[in-house]
Amino acid sequence: MTTDLTTELEEMGRRARAASHLLAGFTTMQKNNALLAVAQELELAIDTILEANAEDVSRAESHGLSGAMIDRLRLSPTRIKKMADEVRNVAELPDPVGKQLVRWIRPNGIEITKIRVPIGVVGIIYESRPNVTSDAAVLCLKTGNATILRGGSEAIASNKAIVEALSRGLEESGLPRDSVQLVPTTDRDVVPIMAGMDQYIDMIVPRGGHALIEAVVTHARMPVIKHYHGVCHLFVEQAADLDMAVDITVNAKCQRPGVCNALETLLVEEPVAKAFLPLAAKSLKQQGVELRGDDATRAILGDDCLPAEPADWTAEYLDLILSIRVVPDFAAAVEHINHYGSHHSDAIVTENTMLAEQFLNQIDSATVYWNASTRFTDGNEFGFGAEIGISTDKLHARGPMGLEELTTYKYQIRGEGQLKQ
Amino acid sequence: MTTDLTTELEEMGRRARAASHLLAGFTTMQKNNALLAVAQELELAIDTILEANAEDVSRAESHGLSGAMIDRLRLSPTRIKKMADEVRNVAELPDPVGKQLVRWIRPNGIEITKIRVPIGVVGIIYESRPNVTSDAAVLCLKTGNATILRGGSEAIASNKAIVEALSRGLEESGLPRDSVQLVPTTDRDVVPIMAGMDQYIDMIVPRGGHALIEAVVTHARMPVIKHYHGVCHLFVEQAADLDMAVDITVNAKCQRPGVCNALETLLVEEPVAKAFLPLAAKSLKQQGVELRGDDATRAILGDDCLPAEPADWTAEYLDLILSIRVVPDFAAAVEHINHYGSHHSDAIVTENTMLAEQFLNQIDSATVYWNASTRFTDGNEFGFGAEIGISTDKLHARGPMGLEELTTYKYQIRGEGQLKQ
Repeated sequence: MTTDLTTELEEMGRRARAASHLLAGFTTMQKNNALLAVAQELELAIDTILEANAEDVSRAESHGLSGAMIDRLRLSPTRIKKMADEVRNVAELPDPVGKQLVRWIRPNGIEITKIRVPIGVVGIIYESRPNVTSDAAVLCLKTGNATILRGGSEAIASNKAIVEALSRGLEESGLPRDSVQLVPTTDRDVVPIMAGMDQYIDMIVPRGGHALIEAVVTHARMPVIKHYHGVCHLFVEQAADLDMAVDITVNAKCQRPGVCNALETLLVEEPVAKAFLPLAAKSLKQQGVELRGDDATRAILGDDCLPAEPADWTAEYLDLILSIRVVPDFAAAVEHINHYGSHHSDAIVTENTMLAEQFLNQIDSATVYWNASTRFTDGNEFGFGAEIGISTDKLHARGPMGLEELTTYKYQIRGEGQLKQ
Repeated sequence: MTTDLTTELEEMGRRARAASHLLAGFTTMQKNNALLAVAQELELAIDTILEANAEDVSRAESHGLSGAMIDRLRLSPTRIKKMADEVRNVAELPDPVGKQLVRWIRPNGIEITKIRVPIGVVGIIYESRPNVTSDAAVLCLKTGNATILRGGSEAIASNKAIVEALSRGLEESGLPRDSVQLVPTTDRDVVPIMAGMDQYIDMIVPRGGHALIEAVVTHARMPVIKHYHGVCHLFVEQAADLDMAVDITVNAKCQRPGVCNALETLLVEEPVAKAFLPLAAKSLKQQGVELRGDDATRAILGDDCLPAEPADWTAEYLDLILSIRVVPDFAAAVEHINHYGSHHSDAIVTENTMLAEQFLNQIDSATVYWNASTRFTDGNEFGFGAEIGISTDKLHARGPMGLEELTTYKYQIRGEGQLKQ
């Protein structure tokens, strides 16, 4: 790692820390006005941003990037207007900062108040989509956090143009320019250096593939909120309404297979397997889903179902593929999910209230469903108004991560000269 | 690192994970009954524990450990009875697990409930005091968490005897024996191996000195809740009640200087420095406190005050030493504290309500005081009933860490077949 790069990043860290202390003192109205100015600057900069984006896209094409990658990278006037609208949407949301969480008075008269405060400096490390630049920075601004953004190298020109627009909006509104900083280089050493800067960065959110998250987790000295994969399960218990079970299976698998809350493994309790599996298979086949089952499943479905390999039980296909297993009983289903799952979103379909409640309690996942599709694990579906992502971690933020999860708390204590006895 | 050791620790991890899934299903009454059985087994094992402890103490003496170290290591019938009483105290406390934090219904009819649940498996890595073994394990048990304990090598025999007693209590009560496991070896490779086991350990709490915490932070892949140092400040603002300011200074510095919430740096606003410093110095000198001041302080106090070096502004003395600085104004005090402090506990003394509120908001510390001693940063003083420590981290747990901070949450969603549109 070059010393120069370390020095440059540490200087960004110092400036971010200073900006975060100032940001914490701005009112909700000041922050919202700044967000509205940012939205306007984004719209005014459409031509500049598109020009920078065209540069990124042509470089990506000459490097032979896949069509899907280029699609994620490419901006349009509509996409930039959508970015600006999203910023205005965040301005409308309630500000969690300053909220009194609890207050009590001790026998010695000291008054303890626990209030929500910004975290401080948030590092965001992400891959190709340039709209993450604006979305993540703005959610952090709303909650009084400074950000250091490190986007994918493919989007560097677009990201610079977007941050330029954000900075103009901040300056017009009197907020510190250093509230949002983009790492200007695409040097690969940036990730390990940033991950080691726990004196300046309070939390890192990596948004991207497995390799990126691994690199951050391996080097990070500060808390990392991971947005990992979702190996989501649906368990069809013997007292299930089988029509509902088919509908939820198809919805959770097919409505949008490429996302983390889509279904990957179907578990069916043995007594209903013969009645349920042919029904489910028929609907899934109509949607073009490839089935991979254990022996018991294949004994029922025959050649409509390929044999599952051990790797299928931990696979996040993100595609029209579904693994299926017949389980002897409720306990075996719970054990399978807690063992093979990724603790993201798991569901049971049953009319047995007692077993449903047991499932809701025993499954060790961020979001556990009874008679509903796993696809609802999402900040907007939860009514959070905006989300920075879906945390697969257990501490600080678990599941959909909205504005509240971009804050922490502190204790304010008011006394009249109390001394410790 | 030896493969054998890794295999052994991973096997402990697997057993802890399995125990944690069972533990999450026990009722508060079952857990409390187990705690009472544990307390009784500790008292029944007094002779065995003392015998093991004598072995540790004589080894420590032959290795030439300091008297203070040996004092921390040594148990007595009274100390073991106190351990047992502490376990009974924890049984009396309310159980945070299962508490509904918030519940709402979405327009599509799904009902979302956010409830407190155990974290899962907690790793505790600590140094010489054997009572941590019982205290930490029991707080985790109460909150439904399994623990993997790694105590100091000096206390290995005592810790084994204590965990034996805990295990007997668990078995009598039908709780999984693997709920509490002690790493049986004192191999130095244990810390890096444990810190890498994020598939089995959800959170690590290191309790000990700087080197121990550094080793854990460097290797940890899972969240670490640090109990770091406290460089605590008191700012005497120009509108302070000077008598109150002297009392708080002396209390915060002298009542128990060796703890993390004791005062280390005194800041005095210039207009009151001449009136306040001689008063404070007189009382501090009576308590035997060594003063180290900047030039402005020494201009007032003369030879009663040694010159402060740059290192004094970040020092945690844990001793009867106090650094003193005269600051030109309120902003300079805030900047000094946010820059040099450790974000633990900081106080202002003033009769100016507006400035006090600004201080409470602008100081970026876990606990911020107005007209009270910093010594109140403590789970018992907060009324938590018990504490696992004082977190110097910002996320998940900040400041005094009680039972609630040993839990996380999950979302339970109840539907009637809802599908994502």
